[in-house]
Amino acid sequence: MLKTRRLGYDGKGQRLFRSAADDPSGAFAALGNVPLILESLVPFEREISIIAARGLDGATACFDPADNVHRNGILYTSTVPASVAAPTAEAARRAATAILEALGYVGVIGVEFFVLADGSVVVNEIAPRVHNSGHWTEAACVVSQFEQHVRAIAGLPLGDPSRHSDCAMQNLIGDEIAELPNLLAAPNVLVHLYGKAEARPGRKMGHFTRLL
Amino acid sequence: MLKTRRLGYDGKGQRLFRSAADDPSGAFAALGNVPLILESLVPFEREISIIAARGLDGATACFDPADNVHRNGILYTSTVPASVAAPTAEAARRAATAILEALGYVGVIGVEFFVLADGSVVVNEIAPRVHNSGHWTEAACVVSQFEQHVRAIAGLPLGDPSRHSDCAMQNLIGDEIAELPNLLAAPNVLVHLYGKAEARPGRKMGHFTRLL
Repeated sequence: MLKTRRLGYDGKGQRLFRSAADDPSGAFAALGNVPLILESLVPFEREISIIAARGLDGATACFDPADNVHRNGILYTSTVPASVAAPTAEAARRAATAILEALGYVGVIGVEFFVLADGSVVVNEIAPRVHNSGHWTEAACVVSQFEQHVRAIAGLPLGDPSRHSDCAMQNLIGDEIAELPNLLAAPNVLVHLYGKAEARPGRKMGHFTRLL
Repeated sequence: MLKTRRLGYDGKGQRLFRSAADDPSGAFAALGNVPLILESLVPFEREISIIAARGLDGATACFDPADNVHRNGILYTSTVPASVAAPTAEAARRAATAILEALGYVGVIGVEFFVLADGSVVVNEIAPRVHNSGHWTEAACVVSQFEQHVRAIAGLPLGDPSRHSDCAMQNLIGDEIAELPNLLAAPNVLVHLYGKAEARPGRKMGHFTRLL
C-alpha cells in the first residue's frame, strides 16, 4: 500500500499494489508528488479506533474503542462497544496513550487500529483532531470528544470518558440524506447535518447516532 | 397567595398572606400595579414539573416528570425519576397534554405541579418555553428540550422523549459558581455556564447535571 504521509482521508491518498507485476508508473504523480510511505498490506480482521485526549497538565483519557466499518474507503459506521476482547481494547488504549505522550500532544486525537487474527493491534492512521469515529461520544458519554478537546487545550480537567449507553453512529453519505424524515421520526436517534448544500456521491452530508 | 398573572419567576411577583390579619395595603403597588390572582395556599408535599411539546401537526410528547426542590424561591435541583407513583406521573402528563391542546400551542412548555398528600396534582405555573427544570433532558435524553422546541416550531417530527439515564440537575446560584473546578473534575458531571460576568446573590450563573 503506497500512501501519502499526511492529509489522507476517506480512502484518498492511497494506491494499492497487489503484486510485483502491478505497474507503479504514474503513482507518484497521481498521489500529488509528495513524500510517500510504502507499507505491506496488513491482513486485519476489523478496524477499531480510540478517541484519546491529553491535557495541558499531561493527564490523559481514552474513550472506549469503537468498531469501524468502511464502505468504498469511507467510514460508514462506528459502534460501541467494539467486538474485541478486553486485552485488545487495553492494548489500543495503551498505544493511543503512548502516542499522546511521545508527541507531547495537547488536545483530542483519533487513533485507528487494525485488529489482527491474534487480537493484537497495529496503528493504521492517526488524526490529530476530533474524529468522525468519535461522534458517538456526543450521544453516549457525559462529555463529548468536542468538549474534551476544549477542556484539553483550555487547561481544564479532562472530562470523564465513561459511556452511559451502547451506541451506533452511521454517516449519511450522498443521497442517504434522503433518509432524514425517517431518521427524525425514529426512536433513540439523534441526527446531525453538516449544512452542505448539495448531495454529491461520496460526500459526507451528516451522521446519526442511535442508542442501542 | 397573591400573584402576578404573567412574568413571575424565581419567587418574584408573589405576596403571601397567612391570615386575614395580614395587611394587604401596598401589595398592589409592590407587585407593579398589574392584574393579579389571589389563590388559596396549596398544602403540597412536593413539586414536580413536566416538559412537554406539541408540534405543528398536533402531535404531543412529554419528558418524564422531575422532582423540583426550591431554595429561597429559586429552583435549586431537578431530579429524574421523580419520587411519585405512576398514577401521579400519568395525571401530570395528561394535564400537560390537555394544556397544550387547549391552547393550540406549538413548541416546548414547562408545566409545574404541586403534588398533594393523596397523590393528586394541581398546576402551579406554566412557562411557555424551555424551562430550567428541563435542563436534565440535555444530559439524560436522546433529544433535549432545546432540540424538541426547534423540531416543534420547524414542523419536524417531535423527538423521542425517553430517558436513558437517571439524572440530577443543580443550579449554580451566586457564589456557588466557585465550585466550578471541582465540578469539572467530577465523574458523570456536565457543566453549563451562562457567561454572566458577575456573581450576585440569587443570580443563576449556570447549572450542572450529574448522571446517577
